[in-house]
Amino acid sequence: MKGIAVLGSTGSIGRQTLDVIRALPEEFKVVALAAGRNHELLAEQVQEFRPRIVWADGDVSGQSWGKGTDFVTMEEMAADVEVDVVMVATTGRAGLGPTFEAIRHGKAVALSNKEVIVMAGGLLNEAAHHTGAAILPVDSEPSAIWQCMRGEDQPVSKLIITASGGPFRKRPLEELAAVTAEQALQHPTWVMGQKITIDSSTLMNKGFEVIECHWLFQMPWDQIEVVVHPQSVIHSMVEFADGSVKAQLGPPDMRLPIQYALMYPDRVANRMLPKFDPLQHSSLTFEQMDTERYPAFKTAVDAGRAGGTFPAVLSAADEEVVHLFLKGKIGFSDINRLVCEVLDSHESSQERSIEGILAADEWARRRVGELVRGR
Amino acid sequence: MKGIAVLGSTGSIGRQTLDVIRALPEEFKVVALAAGRNHELLAEQVQEFRPRIVWADGDVSGQSWGKGTDFVTMEEMAADVEVDVVMVATTGRAGLGPTFEAIRHGKAVALSNKEVIVMAGGLLNEAAHHTGAAILPVDSEPSAIWQCMRGEDQPVSKLIITASGGPFRKRPLEELAAVTAEQALQHPTWVMGQKITIDSSTLMNKGFEVIECHWLFQMPWDQIEVVVHPQSVIHSMVEFADGSVKAQLGPPDMRLPIQYALMYPDRVANRMLPKFDPLQHSSLTFEQMDTERYPAFKTAVDAGRAGGTFPAVLSAADEEVVHLFLKGKIGFSDINRLVCEVLDSHESSQERSIEGILAADEWARRRVGELVRGR
Repeated sequence: MKGIAVLGSTGSIGRQTLDVIRALPEEFKVVALAAGRNHELLAEQVQEFRPRIVWADGDVSGQSWGKGTDFVTMEEMAADVEVDVVMVATTGRAGLGPTFEAIRHGKAVALSNKEVIVMAGGLLNEAAHHTGAAILPVDSEPSAIWQCMRGEDQPVSKLIITASGGPFRKRPLEELAAVTAEQALQHPTWVMGQKITIDSSTLMNKGFEVIECHWLFQMPWDQIEVVVHPQSVIHSMVEFADGSVKAQLGPPDMRLPIQYALMYPDRVANRMLPKFDPLQHSSLTFEQMDTERYPAFKTAVDAGRAGGTFPAVLSAADEEVVHLFLKGKIGFSDINRLVCEVLDSHESSQERSIEGILAADEWARRRVGELVRGR
Repeated sequence: MKGIAVLGSTGSIGRQTLDVIRALPEEFKVVALAAGRNHELLAEQVQEFRPRIVWADGDVSGQSWGKGTDFVTMEEMAADVEVDVVMVATTGRAGLGPTFEAIRHGKAVALSNKEVIVMAGGLLNEAAHHTGAAILPVDSEPSAIWQCMRGEDQPVSKLIITASGGPFRKRPLEELAAVTAEQALQHPTWVMGQKITIDSSTLMNKGFEVIECHWLFQMPWDQIEVVVHPQSVIHSMVEFADGSVKAQLGPPDMRLPIQYALMYPDRVANRMLPKFDPLQHSSLTFEQMDTERYPAFKTAVDAGRAGGTFPAVLSAADEEVVHLFLKGKIGFSDINRLVCEVLDSHESSQERSIEGILAADEWARRRVGELVRGR
């Protein structure tokens, strides 16, 4: 049995992780659960899975947690001796510290919280190289690439990441400035958390995935392409040196990549998971990405290519502006505009350290505040 | 350098094999070439590739073969000490003897001539098991499955073989009886030899591939599905125990699976090979196979499942009736009807031997002659 820590257990990926664990009770032992403010659901999860250690944001006295529940930090969970795999299903910056702690202790990290690798991909790889810790992608696109590369020790010529195009793929460009958070939250193919759903409507998320794949697969930037595939059935593709292309397919359901990461290298049957039926997905299409429609994609990739602390600033600024957009404080087009303004005014530190990354993160968040107040 | 024997070098797959070898001159040495009646092209190939041993059907005195060209049988080629890989690109029964001889000598067999495995799949597997010889698929569909399974030691739940549906996918059923050989030879996506093109118009070929995949991948019959995919871009798919599906894609071009088999396990760049561009293949569709339109598919799979000498009779009868159809002696609908009549009148031997298979083959060919003369 693998000992699992689930960080962000009340979010979308956290709940689906527990679905997988519930379906395969012989395989996993939940050692630790961590969540933010949804104490009620966390308490229910603690009742069901009986983790030894728990973390929750804020005052936890409002719930009954069961006898013997021990509250510790997420960093302590990540380093716990009973934990084999840390599922990092937090959002934004929150996963950074625990991810590094897990890697320092040689744990396998199932990484859903892609901002962590956007912020600190190079440092993560170095740390994992030192300890032998595995960084296992949970996102459907890098999971697809990882699966396609399985058993292939052969040179890869290109990664082809698919993008649904989000809810505004066909909306007239001149209407985009006026779209609301409610509209942006209506993703056509995936049900996800709010932050990633907004990032998927701007395709900022796809830029993050390019950065993620650059680091996870040590792939040069020019060998990563994105193609719009509105059905979200082909989760991504890999082209090998001989021109052969492999793809991984499935109905849009995060439980498969979650299970693949948790069970790796084993594939086991899980009746909860939907099967792919080609006749139910009888038309798969590809479209060129419209860079005018999705300027945030280029913003993200450019920041990734620039390196230094630019990707950390990108991620922090995006987290702040998406939050403002969700609260109705700024418009949809302001998301990319503000992120670009923050990046433009940033002077990257070339010093590569967690402290430097966190300082850049803090700076970017303050800068967003200044720009918004200054309007 | 790998020593290669190309059996059927003047046919479609043989010529494309030599294209691959021409593009990768550091990798291969052509030791042997064998062809049927196209002596002129064979002589040109001998001039270019300088094989040590050659076979040609009939009187070879009409061509100049170059000094030191030694004529031997295909069986002798398959067993030659300098040959590492035997490309069996013959058609119909012709490849059976040389394939067994290659396997007996522990050679890798790149098998394009699928009738060989249809006729004698179980015996081939047993022989290969004894000597450690590898049977490497060249057909695009089993090659796709082989590539998708690469590095996956995990349980497979299903193979999904794709079928273009051939030239008559949309033709009214009542018109099928009257279609001509010329019409049946117009395959919508693949340029191939005549026999396989007719087999692709009836989907007999797809039934053969089901039999081929059953033996190559030791896959139970009920775990092999066929779906119509008119674009021939997804060459086939594999569903694993966890429900994850992997597919191999590429423009319809046999040189990729040929190279993959010859170079296995290496993937090397070859500028001759077309690349897959999702925007050039922007719509991929799936359709249910219409069993009324393609009765030969079921005929083939049923014969495969029945086992014994039924698959050999299937293959032999098909080879004969396709020949008659190409000569205009019988109609399109007669192809399946006659094959079924031959199968219905066959009493299978359970004795499993090459001799038994060849006797059944001979019997089936005679039986086709009787049925056609008796009309």
